[in-house]
Amino acid sequence: CVSVSVSEHQHLRYNPLRDTWVLVSAHRMKRPWSGQVEKEEEDQVPQHDPNNPLCPGNTRANGEVNPDYNNTFVFENDFPALQPNAPDPGYNQHPLFQSKAARGVCKVMCFHPWSDVTLPLMTLPDIIKVIDKWAELMVDLGSTYPWVQIFENKGAMMGCSNPHPHCQVWASNFLPNEATLSDRCQREYLKTHGEPLLLQYAKMEAERRERVVVQNADWLAVVPYWATWPFQTLLLPRRHVQRLTNLTAQEREGLASIMKRLLTKYDNLFQISFPYSMGWHGAPTGPYLKEDQFHWQLHAHYYPPLLRSAGVRKFMVGYEMLAQEQRDLTPEQVIHLGNSITRNQAMWGGQ
Amino acid sequence: CVSVSVSEHQHLRYNPLRDTWVLVSAHRMKRPWSGQVEKEEEDQVPQHDPNNPLCPGNTRANGEVNPDYNNTFVFENDFPALQPNAPDPGYNQHPLFQSKAARGVCKVMCFHPWSDVTLPLMTLPDIIKVIDKWAELMVDLGSTYPWVQIFENKGAMMGCSNPHPHCQVWASNFLPNEATLSDRCQREYLKTHGEPLLLQYAKMEAERRERVVVQNADWLAVVPYWATWPFQTLLLPRRHVQRLTNLTAQEREGLASIMKRLLTKYDNLFQISFPYSMGWHGAPTGPYLKEDQFHWQLHAHYYPPLLRSAGVRKFMVGYEMLAQEQRDLTPEQVIHLGNSITRNQAMWGGQ
Ligand SMILES: O=P(O)(O)O[C@H]1O[C@H](CO)[C@@H](O)[C@H](O)[C@H]1O
Ligand SMILES: O=P(O)(O)O[C@H]1O[C@H](CO)[C@@H](O)[C@H](O)[C@H]1O
Repeated sequence: CVSVSVSEHQHLRYNPLRDTWVLVSAHRMKRPWSGQVEKEEEDQVPQHDPNNPLCPGNTRANGEVNPDYNNTFVFENDFPALQPNAPDPGYNQHPLFQSKAARGVCKVMCFHPWSDVTLPLMTLPDIIKVIDKWAELMVDLGSTYPWVQIFENKGAMMGCSNPHPHCQVWASNFLPNEATLSDRCQREYLKTHGEPLLLQYAKMEAERRERVVVQNADWLAVVPYWATWPFQTLLLPRRHVQRLTNLTAQEREGLASIMKRLLTKYDNLFQISFPYSMGWHGAPTGPYLKEDQFHWQLHAHYYPPLLRSAGVRKFMVGYEMLAQEQRDLTPEQVIHLGNSITRNQAMWGGQ
Repeated sequence: CVSVSVSEHQHLRYNPLRDTWVLVSAHRMKRPWSGQVEKEEEDQVPQHDPNNPLCPGNTRANGEVNPDYNNTFVFENDFPALQPNAPDPGYNQHPLFQSKAARGVCKVMCFHPWSDVTLPLMTLPDIIKVIDKWAELMVDLGSTYPWVQIFENKGAMMGCSNPHPHCQVWASNFLPNEATLSDRCQREYLKTHGEPLLLQYAKMEAERRERVVVQNADWLAVVPYWATWPFQTLLLPRRHVQRLTNLTAQEREGLASIMKRLLTKYDNLFQISFPYSMGWHGAPTGPYLKEDQFHWQLHAHYYPPLLRSAGVRKFMVGYEMLAQEQRDLTPEQVIHLGNSITRNQAMWGGQ
């Protein structure tokens, strides 16, 4: 248990999923802010915009017409960062000038036919349809690609350029850096401690209850002990589940429900449609489907940029980029001192 | 040499300083942008603002009055993320809940008495005074602290909350993540290849000339082969120099001159006072002063956020945070295809 004196002073915390440290400066929230303030008001989004390429029935950049879809709709990204056919840069390279082929596909997935909803505003059956489609894409793309990254950039602050509720799915012929790192850390943890890292972590967090934001029978959302973003959360199944595709029907229902509760809590925090980038990490696929991946536990990371209010974000800049990530309040403060950060809630987490 | 076909397709490049890969999607600049646009106009900054705590003669948050300084001025950060006296969190911790003491000091260094100048607008003698003060702080703080991070957050977009030209210096009793990583990579490179990584790299870049932005007798600024930010640069001495404190008077003059040219090029790119976070990396100090650090080469990283114009930044969000950093044009395009990005210059680099 972290003692009171420590939680009042700066200290380092270890991120066992990335083998890095974060500098936690407990009371830096006190400093005045005269820096950049983000635009708080979002433009009113119409339910259907005839010019939005993501809406049902509209024409996209490549001339294709979207179907009149009722729930989710998946299409190929018209400006993909990854394509299936890139040539190989060739071998015999100097160690300081190394390149490798990158091949893959980029898909966009609309969550709902309406532009004016977000996941927390959708019904549970509609959220379950999103989860089912995620699993379906993992099966399809994961049959050949070693890594399938499902991620959502929500809000203009997170580089989202279209307000229609959607996520992206980028599949690649390589394991990205973050996947490689997480794989190594989970593998070594299992070897040393005999239990999958995140399975043990979820159990301990459920017992300690200090950092739990929301939970139900099958899932747990915590502000991880090593969180870098102020309101960062980690969403974990309680059972050992290696991939999205392994979730039972009941676990998908539970996931829809906990996502709705977590995202509603985010929206309520500063009374804004809360911006974030989120994504799923699970055991690698493609050739790895045949290998033992017992060390992996499925999880989602939520990285929201806000710090003090709907308009003031945490900047991960100079010190963070060049030295080490730094946060201005402890993860426990986020849960327990919710009332000094928000104005409308006694406690953000603990449910 | 990178072949034409590769430079037109996405590929991966290896960052030997961080042992990571970056996804380079050469032609993603073509995609239309309808996302967040930053405020382009900066408020006119007065030369002296009686309410700005960084100006000469003004009173700061703690009641102290700034001297009537003529060039640089250094003071303790009034809201430090690191303080010298934090208690130790104690031992016998669970591997998933590890913390460590973090001790240090945070200083602020004003570059100039006027608020309406920036480094590229300052005279060479005034920039040399900044460099001399950096070296002085490295001597002072580096005598005990293993890592002294000098960094500048420039522009509101980079979380800078005060327009007065200044940088920060955070000294810590630990090696931050980025320092540890860079130390390991440089150490292993020397062991395997017999020459310091960045010394060899500077020589090869000077020969190849494909990614050079500016150079002079003692220094070289390149968009590194593995750059993640669109206009990222790496500033390197040509001689083997391990720390800022080892620079000769002539090298300091050359540094002032190349900094002025590099930063002027940045400002000219989109006709704006160019935002960035920058910082120095050199051999660790304190107890490491007594150890062999031959593998280290001093260098500065410049990380500017802009992508297409003064108002459109590169968002390092979903895929970048969860999988791997991705860039939308090649480092060579930044240098050679300058005219399709900027409107006012045939070529950004190559001088
Ligand atoms: O110290 P400042 O300028 O108030 O703060 C700025 O730089 C710090 C160090 O990179 C960051 O932690 C802050 O998020 C940023 O706003
Ligand atoms: O694909 P989008 O939504 O156009 O683009 C957004 O997400 C991408 C993946 O994280 C980033 O590379 C872009 O910088 C960001 O603007």
